[in-house]
Amino acid sequence: MAHKDGIFLMNCWYVAAWSHDLIDGRKLARTLLEVPVVLYRGDSGRVVALDNRCCHRAAPLDLGRIEGDCLRCMYHGMKFDPSGKCIEIPGQERVPPKLGVRSYPVVERDGIVWIWMGDEDQADPAKIVDFPAMRDPAWRGIPDYMHYDANWMLIVDNLSDFAHLAFVHTNTLGGSEEYAYKTKPVAIERLEDGFRVERWHLDSDPPPYHRKVIPNKTDKVDRKNIGHMQIPGMFFLYTTFAPAGSGLKDGNKEGARSYCNCQFMTPETRRSTHFFWNYLHDFDLDDPNIARSLRNSIEEGFMEDKAFIEGQQKLLDADPEFKMLAIGADAALSHFRWVFDERVKAEQQAAKSAAQPMAMPMSQRATA
Amino acid sequence: MAHKDGIFLMNCWYVAAWSHDLIDGRKLARTLLEVPVVLYRGDSGRVVALDNRCCHRAAPLDLGRIEGDCLRCMYHGMKFDPSGKCIEIPGQERVPPKLGVRSYPVVERDGIVWIWMGDEDQADPAKIVDFPAMRDPAWRGIPDYMHYDANWMLIVDNLSDFAHLAFVHTNTLGGSEEYAYKTKPVAIERLEDGFRVERWHLDSDPPPYHRKVIPNKTDKVDRKNIGHMQIPGMFFLYTTFAPAGSGLKDGNKEGARSYCNCQFMTPETRRSTHFFWNYLHDFDLDDPNIARSLRNSIEEGFMEDKAFIEGQQKLLDADPEFKMLAIGADAALSHFRWVFDERVKAEQQAAKSAAQPMAMPMSQRATA
Amino acid sequence: MAHKDGIFLMNCWYVAAWSHDLIDGRKLARTLLEVPVVLYRGDSGRVVALDNRCCHRAAPLDLGRIEGDCLRCMYHGMKFDPSGKCIEIPGQERVPPKLGVRSYPVVERDGIVWIWMGDEDQADPAKIVDFPAMRDPAWRGIPDYMHYDANWMLIVDNLSDFAHLAFVHTNTLGGSEEYAYKTKPVAIERLEDGFRVERWHLDSDPPPYHRKVIPNKTDKVDRKNIGHMQIPGMFFLYTTFAPAGSGLKDGNKEGARSYCNCQFMTPETRRSTHFFWNYLHDFDLDDPNIARSLRNSIEEGFMEDKAFIEGQQKLLDADPEFKMLAIGADAALSHFRWVFDERVKAEQQAAKSAAQPMAMPMSQRATA
Repeated sequence: MAHKDGIFLMNCWYVAAWSHDLIDGRKLARTLLEVPVVLYRGDSGRVVALDNRCCHRAAPLDLGRIEGDCLRCMYHGMKFDPSGKCIEIPGQERVPPKLGVRSYPVVERDGIVWIWMGDEDQADPAKIVDFPAMRDPAWRGIPDYMHYDANWMLIVDNLSDFAHLAFVHTNTLGGSEEYAYKTKPVAIERLEDGFRVERWHLDSDPPPYHRKVIPNKTDKVDRKNIGHMQIPGMFFLYTTFAPAGSGLKDGNKEGARSYCNCQFMTPETRRSTHFFWNYLHDFDLDDPNIARSLRNSIEEGFMEDKAFIEGQQKLLDADPEFKMLAIGADAALSHFRWVFDERVKAEQQAAKSAAQPMAMPMSQRATA
Repeated sequence: MAHKDGIFLMNCWYVAAWSHDLIDGRKLARTLLEVPVVLYRGDSGRVVALDNRCCHRAAPLDLGRIEGDCLRCMYHGMKFDPSGKCIEIPGQERVPPKLGVRSYPVVERDGIVWIWMGDEDQADPAKIVDFPAMRDPAWRGIPDYMHYDANWMLIVDNLSDFAHLAFVHTNTLGGSEEYAYKTKPVAIERLEDGFRVERWHLDSDPPPYHRKVIPNKTDKVDRKNIGHMQIPGMFFLYTTFAPAGSGLKDGNKEGARSYCNCQFMTPETRRSTHFFWNYLHDFDLDDPNIARSLRNSIEEGFMEDKAFIEGQQKLLDADPEFKMLAIGADAALSHFRWVFDERVKAEQQAAKSAAQPMAMPMSQRATA
Repeated sequence: MAHKDGIFLMNCWYVAAWSHDLIDGRKLARTLLEVPVVLYRGDSGRVVALDNRCCHRAAPLDLGRIEGDCLRCMYHGMKFDPSGKCIEIPGQERVPPKLGVRSYPVVERDGIVWIWMGDEDQADPAKIVDFPAMRDPAWRGIPDYMHYDANWMLIVDNLSDFAHLAFVHTNTLGGSEEYAYKTKPVAIERLEDGFRVERWHLDSDPPPYHRKVIPNKTDKVDRKNIGHMQIPGMFFLYTTFAPAGSGLKDGNKEGARSYCNCQFMTPETRRSTHFFWNYLHDFDLDDPNIARSLRNSIEEGFMEDKAFIEGQQKLLDADPEFKMLAIGADAALSHFRWVFDERVKAEQQAAKSAAQPMAMPMSQRATA
């Protein structure tokens, strides 16, 4: 994996799948950080993640068969337990004790399957970010997925930057060009693992996606946005709309409607990204069409971004020497890229200092 | 752009588009000489060509918005004037004076948009080749476009070589195998910027494309062809048919019908080409079907060539060590390749001698 | 061809095509061992194989015209005889005596077109493997073809290994998982040019493909399999079914039904393979549906393999550092890969020792 050095942050939890991706015995083949992985739910209910490549002759394990919590390669019948250890070779009595494929720590929580691609010893579930709205019956949403032909950091950039709302999303998520020209970029709170941003719009028109799901579509609203971007690429956005002048800033939540939005970017390769998102709402919970409408509106907005983001990737690929410029509005993304790079460097340094290489697959250990 | 050294001739005018490619506010994304360019017509009517890559974060500018003669990037709202200079950054008072994208000199003439991809200081409109038939009401034609998955020089080779007519185009543009076997290749006039060739066929059958648009389809004709191939890849062909024996060689044009054909090859990349062409005629000008018929016939002929030319490109890609051989019929193309290479070498030499690199994008200057 | 050193075995006969691929004057463009070749049947009936690239300007010769046993390039009319020698250049009296394209020794036998891609002097037809069933009226089958996006050796591996039958082909070609778990891998006979394997199943159910074409579908059978894998990648499988207990092992063939199966793997590139096969039978020869049914059954089985084999290729491409492991069942394929590698090494050594390079195309000789 030497060629991936410095590209990905290895020692952190990534979203690998939604829980519902693994229904009906599906063996999900998904490349994560340029590693082909197979994910499946064993008969006990446990989710397992293994290298999607048999240690024998590189057959894809997603063509295999789930047996209990184990997976059998259906090319020559080798059987692997959830730790990746080979526990049966047809026609052969002795199985070398260290033979197997690499398994990856997995935690399933609130409908999300988290995976740890780095050093197994550091895979502490306590480090998994908590997003309580996903399990709170006071919130409702539809988890969704998109695939981007672009480096995940270009999506992080996009989400880090409120300036683009005015230009890209005027007719979907909302954003005012007029406002963009006359205001300074909003200040961010620099954090060690990303940044936090708070933004208020008072006495303004409700944005298109909100207007679609509320009764009084033309009443002015006060709006509060709190965004939080976290390493390696997770964005949480908390939005509250209240009737203009109703005192939201002073804590009065009467007539308020809130949204809770999570977005997870997991690198597939350095040029493509798995994008998981859920836009939850806390009102009219008995009406399933609210969540559907929001899902559609947000996706429409994401598609507007996608054209730019995948366009950027193509142009960067075409000319690797191009250097991006920073403008005033880029404070957030610049900070995020900086703290991310520091983390990657620290990880690299730690790996070099350690006596043993960080991520040696079990199969290689077996033959060493 | 160092990797393109010696591949393209930079300091010359290329056809970038037909004027009609820019109607209805279209922002045309077109890669020229491996540079992504966006072309658009400003509100004043002026055609502008800019790098199709925002200097900020590489967003494609063809997703932008025309404002007057300027173009605004619709990702974060940076606005560029026709010279490429950035004149507005939303939410930021100061715009660095040298910030911007590269603009390319453009001249629109007779329905053709010419572009200069090299050193701006040398972009003299007087160097643009004149093709008066394009503006002369005595001529009528339909400008058209094809895309080739092949290096432009393979198309130049094709057009430089009358020998292929007999084999490739017997049933479309015409050409006689029998004649090909018994005659010597026609002599060319070697020019500094290409070559000129004159060819006569006396008392012969009209070729298929001509036969389709004339009343007396079986009468023998005398035919005069004058071809002119010019650097960097422009071919002009003047053809006159007259009744056999009517004295065309002595200057008698009674009963003569003439064609005027321009073909412009502009490299998209070293492996693909924009091919612009117009086959004009000077007779029966009130019948629009003549131009349509000719357009179809010529395109049919080009498609016959395309199979060979794109086949050559694939075979050359598969084995970069293959060396082409020259035969007697290759005098024209050999001369053309030679004068072209000399021009490229001279350009390279001049660039090396100059104190400043030739083609430094404005955006890089801004950050230097 | 230096970059192909050590990849392919050059000095051996490969299957280039079935005879029926060349009906109706077809000029078959087929890449063999990464060399673009054109195959055609001349008017005399003789099959000719030439480089599918004109020595003049790299035009594809499969766009050419068969004239007698010669092929004329239809770009500029150069004509090549079956030895590859150029014998006519239109408009040019003198043809350089050594000008031409490379031709490849070809032998057509029993419906198979064999080609020799290596040193012409060593191309001895006596080295062609004989498969008499192809010409014997006591056998009937349908020759067929599949294309694999995988290195040929992965297909050889697959066919070398009976262990996979139980897991991949339970419902098509047959194979019992239960049996696979409790038995040792079958012993092979190591040969200098591959291996031979003999396998018996007594008193067992007929496998699905056999059951489809016999009347007594549930009667137990005794089954004998003899497989023979030969360099460079040819597999012959002789299978006989007889009523259980009828004495097949003692030579009694009453009530026996036999199959004769040939499979030829010819590298297209190092990542793709031409796969030729014919599954012949010796019973009910007047019923054409037997051969059709077998063809369908076997193809269904091959498609099961293809998913694994092409999956392996993708995973190997994604991580060139992956090393396969051998298990007990791999004795056959391990031996075959070893004897194959020895042959390639010997060939390399011989080529280095020789004064002249092995495979210099005629066109290069002509210009040297």
